[in-house]
Amino acid sequence: MAVPASGRSPSVPPALYGPVAGDLPLVEAKLASLAAEGAPWLREMLVPVLAGAGKRMRPAVALLAGRFGRYEPERLVPLAASVELLHTATLVHDDVIDASPERRGRPTAAALFQNGPSVMLGDYMFAHAADFVAETGNIRAIRAFAKTLRVMATGELEQDLSAFEYSEDVQRYFDRIAGKTASLFATAAEGGAIVAGADEPAIGAMRRYGQRLGMAFQIVDDVLDFTGDAEAMGKPVASDLRSGTLTLPAILYLQREPEDNPVRRAFDGVRPRANFERAIAAIREGGMLAESMEVARRFASEALDAIERAPRHAADPETRETLAGLVSEVLDRES
Amino acid sequence: MAVPASGRSPSVPPALYGPVAGDLPLVEAKLASLAAEGAPWLREMLVPVLAGAGKRMRPAVALLAGRFGRYEPERLVPLAASVELLHTATLVHDDVIDASPERRGRPTAAALFQNGPSVMLGDYMFAHAADFVAETGNIRAIRAFAKTLRVMATGELEQDLSAFEYSEDVQRYFDRIAGKTASLFATAAEGGAIVAGADEPAIGAMRRYGQRLGMAFQIVDDVLDFTGDAEAMGKPVASDLRSGTLTLPAILYLQREPEDNPVRRAFDGVRPRANFERAIAAIREGGMLAESMEVARRFASEALDAIERAPRHAADPETRETLAGLVSEVLDRES
Repeated sequence: MAVPASGRSPSVPPALYGPVAGDLPLVEAKLASLAAEGAPWLREMLVPVLAGAGKRMRPAVALLAGRFGRYEPERLVPLAASVELLHTATLVHDDVIDASPERRGRPTAAALFQNGPSVMLGDYMFAHAADFVAETGNIRAIRAFAKTLRVMATGELEQDLSAFEYSEDVQRYFDRIAGKTASLFATAAEGGAIVAGADEPAIGAMRRYGQRLGMAFQIVDDVLDFTGDAEAMGKPVASDLRSGTLTLPAILYLQREPEDNPVRRAFDGVRPRANFERAIAAIREGGMLAESMEVARRFASEALDAIERAPRHAADPETRETLAGLVSEVLDRES
Repeated sequence: MAVPASGRSPSVPPALYGPVAGDLPLVEAKLASLAAEGAPWLREMLVPVLAGAGKRMRPAVALLAGRFGRYEPERLVPLAASVELLHTATLVHDDVIDASPERRGRPTAAALFQNGPSVMLGDYMFAHAADFVAETGNIRAIRAFAKTLRVMATGELEQDLSAFEYSEDVQRYFDRIAGKTASLFATAAEGGAIVAGADEPAIGAMRRYGQRLGMAFQIVDDVLDFTGDAEAMGKPVASDLRSGTLTLPAILYLQREPEDNPVRRAFDGVRPRANFERAIAAIREGGMLAESMEVARRFASEALDAIERAPRHAADPETRETLAGLVSEVLDRES
């Protein structure tokens, strides 16, 4: 896949982001400023990393939540850029931690540039994320951010350490993805509302919306890991399972077949290749993916509920519809 | 060397930190809270890393600078802990980047826990540093922090040191150590004054003091790399030179002997072992260490000058004397 040029927006249908679609290029420009000011070697690393990060859903959520108060791009754009940068920096370090060769069909920074420069690149991005959020001038937003960074860092540590444990139940899976993914969605939404000076009920509603959207997002991601086309995903099917991480479909499968389960056998090192294939087939055919999607839909419906419960006066119908549309997008996405 | 227990202060003569010596245990307790709240394995990683970091000079500088305004431990202690944590997190990531097996005679986190967990540990510490500085509730201090993190991550030049008439190579070395070391000392001092609500001349004086102290500190560090006892330092003599990094003594030596120099030969791969030994002996015997110390003393004298120029009314004589004493400590230290 070709690497897009710096600063070019990823191809996103403008309708998806409704009233904030016109401001996402400002977020893109803010992100591109990082590459412009850095040293040449840094620029070389940053451009593909920033361009390859996806649909910019997190910054869109931050901007949309800003419409529950005074929508001021000069404060909301730095916040939105900060959210995206934090997300991307986390991916860069994750790829070092997991020694991942590819992400979304492209070589990772860790693979292209080795560990040392990738750690430095991630730190540079974290530093800019901190600087961007400080630009909002809002202590409460800054504190929410710092807390999220902490939760994300700990979530990752727990994830790594809990690899290959059998006893993991669904609740612990929720805790893990809450830290790893939903916390940043929650802070994007809450932060947008805070920076815009929205009232407390709106801030609370946006936090809940972001948190539930993030939970649904990660569960769908974990389902796609089982259904996806290996080539389109840029990684082997069930890569998490193969590397020892249990996600919801596999957890449900272990609960259904607690005794003689190929996942257990593979984790115990008994013919892992064949047993992983058997497990993947059983998960695909046994209804665990549909069951997982049902859980995702439950979180999605709580996200919709949060929009409903937000004070009616706080945002225009178009903003509410766009937020609801993102929930459908998360459930229906194919990669 | 034995690893001290969590939360115990490193052995520092109380006189060194004068009026703030009594508050440094609060900084220590704040740092120890990180380990207390984490999971057991996190604690296992954090305790030796936090205990092994040295004399807590940076937090002491932050607290002392706070005496140029309203000295309130509840705001200054989080700032001081943040500075120390940022410093320590940087060391953890540096050891991953450089694949260093030891630091100060102890195995590094990177060596003890592998790269992945060390990257996560550093991120966790950065996250807490961000949280601590946000606790000050002071946007200006937060922004100074974020900027420092950026400068440290890239080594970007922030200070104009070209007032001195040094060669381009020496200037580039100054730029590098300004980013790597002096920027954090500067922000510790500036941040303390900002958080305490000191007046602008005092804030400026403290920033300059910290910057110059940091420059002297790093130059002395680079001299000690050549003079030190390999065992006491916990690394081979001239480890920077051996890994291809030119510090001030080697730069001065290359300027003196630009043509046929064993450093060049070693870097070109010509009998590196023997040529490094020859270079080290020549640097030790050729006066380059004394010349480097002379440069350190110039920075140190500018640090003293900054204290002198700070508004007289702003801080008590004991604070000024303690700040001046730290300058002597930096010049006279042996490891």
